Amino acid sequence: MMENKIIKERLSLLKKEMKANGVDCYMLPTSDFHNSEYVDDYFKAREYFSNFTGSNGTLVVREEETGLWTDGRYFIQAENELAGTGIRLFRMLEEGVPTIQEYLEKEMKSGQVLGFDGRVVDCRFGKKLEKALGEKGIAIQYETDLAGQLWSDRPALPHHEAVLLPEKICGQTCAEKVSGVREKMKEKKAAYFLLSKLDDLMWLLNIRGKDVACNPVALSYGFLTMEEMYLFIQKEAVTQELKAYAETYHIVIKDYFEIAEFLKNFSYHGAVMYDSGNLNYALYKTICGKTECIDERNPTELMKAVKNPVELQNMREVFLTDNVVVTKFIYWLKQNAGKIPLNEYTAAMKLDGMRREAEGFLDLSFETISGYKENAAMMHYEATEENNKEIRAEGMLLVDSGGQYMGGTTDITRTIVLGEISEEEKKHFSAVAAGMIRLSNAKFLYGCTGRNVDILAREPMWEMNIDYKCGTGHGVGYILNVHEGPQGIRWKYTEGQTEAVLEEGMNVTNEPGVYREGSHGIRTENVMLVRKGEKNGDGQFMYFETLTFVPIDREALDKKYLTETDVRRIDAYHEEVYRRISPKLTKEEAEWLREVTLPL
Amino acid sequence: MMENKIIKERLSLLKKEMKANGVDCYMLPTSDFHNSEYVDDYFKAREYFSNFTGSNGTLVVREEETGLWTDGRYFIQAENELAGTGIRLFRMLEEGVPTIQEYLEKEMKSGQVLGFDGRVVDCRFGKKLEKALGEKGIAIQYETDLAGQLWSDRPALPHHEAVLLPEKICGQTCAEKVSGVREKMKEKKAAYFLLSKLDDLMWLLNIRGKDVACNPVALSYGFLTMEEMYLFIQKEAVTQELKAYAETYHIVIKDYFEIAEFLKNFSYHGAVMYDSGNLNYALYKTICGKTECIDERNPTELMKAVKNPVELQNMREVFLTDNVVVTKFIYWLKQNAGKIPLNEYTAAMKLDGMRREAEGFLDLSFETISGYKENAAMMHYEATEENNKEIRAEGMLLVDSGGQYMGGTTDITRTIVLGEISEEEKKHFSAVAAGMIRLSNAKFLYGCTGRNVDILAREPMWEMNIDYKCGTGHGVGYILNVHEGPQGIRWKYTEGQTEAVLEEGMNVTNEPGVYREGSHGIRTENVMLVRKGEKNGDGQFMYFETLTFVPIDREALDKKYLTETDVRRIDAYHEEVYRRISPKLTKEEAEWLREVTLPL
Repeated sequence: MMENKIIKERLSLLKKEMKANGVDCYMLPTSDFHNSEYVDDYFKAREYFSNFTGSNGTLVVREEETGLWTDGRYFIQAENELAGTGIRLFRMLEEGVPTIQEYLEKEMKSGQVLGFDGRVVDCRFGKKLEKALGEKGIAIQYETDLAGQLWSDRPALPHHEAVLLPEKICGQTCAEKVSGVREKMKEKKAAYFLLSKLDDLMWLLNIRGKDVACNPVALSYGFLTMEEMYLFIQKEAVTQELKAYAETYHIVIKDYFEIAEFLKNFSYHGAVMYDSGNLNYALYKTICGKTECIDERNPTELMKAVKNPVELQNMREVFLTDNVVVTKFIYWLKQNAGKIPLNEYTAAMKLDGMRREAEGFLDLSFETISGYKENAAMMHYEATEENNKEIRAEGMLLVDSGGQYMGGTTDITRTIVLGEISEEEKKHFSAVAAGMIRLSNAKFLYGCTGRNVDILAREPMWEMNIDYKCGTGHGVGYILNVHEGPQGIRWKYTEGQTEAVLEEGMNVTNEPGVYREGSHGIRTENVMLVRKGEKNGDGQFMYFETLTFVPIDREALDKKYLTETDVRRIDAYHEEVYRRISPKLTKEEAEWLREVTLPL
Repeated sequence: MMENKIIKERLSLLKKEMKANGVDCYMLPTSDFHNSEYVDDYFKAREYFSNFTGSNGTLVVREEETGLWTDGRYFIQAENELAGTGIRLFRMLEEGVPTIQEYLEKEMKSGQVLGFDGRVVDCRFGKKLEKALGEKGIAIQYETDLAGQLWSDRPALPHHEAVLLPEKICGQTCAEKVSGVREKMKEKKAAYFLLSKLDDLMWLLNIRGKDVACNPVALSYGFLTMEEMYLFIQKEAVTQELKAYAETYHIVIKDYFEIAEFLKNFSYHGAVMYDSGNLNYALYKTICGKTECIDERNPTELMKAVKNPVELQNMREVFLTDNVVVTKFIYWLKQNAGKIPLNEYTAAMKLDGMRREAEGFLDLSFETISGYKENAAMMHYEATEENNKEIRAEGMLLVDSGGQYMGGTTDITRTIVLGEISEEEKKHFSAVAAGMIRLSNAKFLYGCTGRNVDILAREPMWEMNIDYKCGTGHGVGYILNVHEGPQGIRWKYTEGQTEAVLEEGMNVTNEPGVYREGSHGIRTENVMLVRKGEKNGDGQFMYFETLTFVPIDREALDKKYLTETDVRRIDAYHEEVYRRISPKLTKEEAEWLREVTLPL
């Protein structure tokens, strides 16, 4: 095993700096100041000091030992990337492996100091550590970014111009939304609302940014009183239009980096509402003790999740655009697989390129996942230019992709047959399609959550003693993050996961799958809207309206693995795919679509 | 409207007695000392003072006004029975109707006194009233049974001999069970466990009684220390066998009525665990303040719900016996309907009589529900000798019944076609059968609760915009109460309802239905066992084993309302019904059974 001298040198410098600052243990999580799902390179100090590039990982540095915590998706990758660094891998959730908190409680001694940059630790976790370690006489130093100081070639903090969304795109003015939030503040008896979650703030103000990859958000904070709205945002983001807009809506623009001083010096005359799952620990400490602090989920979360009629109509149009792109891509792929040089990465590039040409396209909504054959069994597989698998005229390619459009955010997965596949693959593919179509056709009473309906999608897999180790569906933002709460479809809710009633106007993905390690991976994913159906003495009935119309590969569907009802529903779905998509295709594409959407 | 002089006279006496005792408001709920589901006549003081006979109702008597609270099942009945009494009906859960607590808070004044017999109010409700009214300066007098004192011809408290169950019936000795409970006490850091729930105590000691109709329990309390087990039970229940048994297992028998004094004078050296949902308020007040009191669900509840292998085997045999009885009854009914004089009540009597002849029969597990045509739409309809509907050779009869046997408790519903029925009835009947058979065939991962699987039974009805306003299933006791927790199958859990993981060895009913007011009611109910299936890397898979094998009426099943899978499963079920039941029938019955279990 080659020694990784660069990492060892960096860690040794960090340990010196720790000693100089009286810190015995330093923790480096993977987060920005807002606990965002995706983070910019500026926030990848953990990668700089460990060489581990996965999206989830926390480095804990002590004189005696340095450890990296990551989850099951990344065990193999972490082993490879940590080789030669001397860093010990802690496999999260494996039996006998301590959590970070348990580790710190065990290894640190009374009188010692734990250090971390309090701006990249969410306040819920910070408070837990503060309590647990405080009881053992261990102090916390959260005000210095030790690692950042040593990171010589650190990229700059991203700062792009903010963009205003026209009202015909939003359906509601910022003033209307703010007034709705103030109602919720009154309900909770809060005089102020500190909003740190980026997508919630973008929604509230009808603005967008480009500071986080694939998430059209600007780094910013909001502070709402009963009279004013303060927006803390980088000066580079503030355009003339934004200034004028701010004046119209009485938004006071302040510099992003002034937030802490502002909160420290503000004279409070009432309670502050904040969301401990999203506010960072350092900011929390500036308000804590100054006034009453009410820990509540951001009221903006549910308001944003329930799309308004204008948003719904724009989404329908945007999905149609995106459906056409993906259908054309499938046609292209089937025509070319085995004939031209192609790999997982170049196939993804092709799709991304086609999407970029589409009307209203802004950005991808996440990095396209393109997994061929056994690679598709890894749920978070990422093919790169350097590291990918060649595509031939056999097996299946799983492609999970989506776009940000002026009018909505899309997310779709299709698993595409490129040649011969096994009987087992057909069986699994058919079961996945059955699950997807059964959930799509669910009728349920108002009051149901994702937990009530999940089994409709999962049952065909459970009948084969197979499970997919993830939820069946998640909410999707509106020109915002592709993963959005509080709605979701899962059979089990663990701590921190909200279980929300499915409300009219919410959207949710429907993406069952089968993942067989070393063999194949199948996922079929549509996006659906929650809609109201009949209301009668028995209650308000609800159903799903499908937004995704792209063929499900007939070559892998076998009637012997489907019920008559499944077949009838898949046929009806395909008929609708043809009806909606064929007018947007070339003659050749349309002829092909006719064939692949014929009744089974 | 005729005045009800008897009730008015009784209420006037009660008000006098209240005044003499300094009580401004007196509350009369419907409960025994143990918060049992069914109560003996001794506990029906509310009926004596109000004329209302429903199973759920609370009378609140004030000088100014007397009110009766009951739920939706009983609104019409209560109106009729309260006519002429001057008592005001409060329709629970209707909009604008105050709860009892809200009413008392609003109407009572500071310095006033609320009276009730603290032995028939559960301590959870008692504590809530104590807190809410205490804040308003209203006192509670809970130590006198004012109403009981005035009830001249009150029936005696029931007291029957207790019966010991042999080990071959229980599968586990009382010593083993007690030792398991002591483990749970240690976990909860409790030195004592006060057990007031009758079926839990019967289970723990392997004894049974006859003090509550249909529930084979003896009025009793248990008090468990780490060394001793005290059983408080009426002296009439104590046989020579019980004395000898108690000696063997170191059970100290004390008189039922000594419990309060015992708890008052006991010298505590640790905390007492109790279940506020089942302990009465008066007893709670005797321990409250004496030592630490830990409010926990009785650990016996879950232990009792998970049946052991001996119990499971006995249940399978007992269900077979009961299945034969019900099958024979259906045959008899179909042969005789329209030919002999028959009504809902005499039909129920016939079934009860047949059950009484069965091997191992002890008692009914609840009063047989027999509802003809539109009467079946009332979920809690009770035909009586005086009040019933004549049965002719048309429509359907819904019969929900069960027995207590030496080896298990049964519960089954069949809706039986007696002649012509409408197309709508066939459609609804088929949907109910589809729901029942889909849930029966569920495969699910360990960790699922009833909420995860409920939709399998309910979906065929929801697809028609119809719901049944009750759970899909409940646990069933073992020679104990027909309704048993903590398991259950429902789509929504309200306050106070537990949501339990479905554990191997639990049983649960599967009883979807359609109820159309004024027209018809359909319910098909089987009992199932929760079983472990395959365990693999994806988890522990679970399935249901059916215990009930009685034909589902083919005359009301129409393939056009069923999926192919439904038809295949119903056919397989009927094949199994024939295989198991036909050997126990006469030649004529067996020939009939062959026909009614043929593939659809």
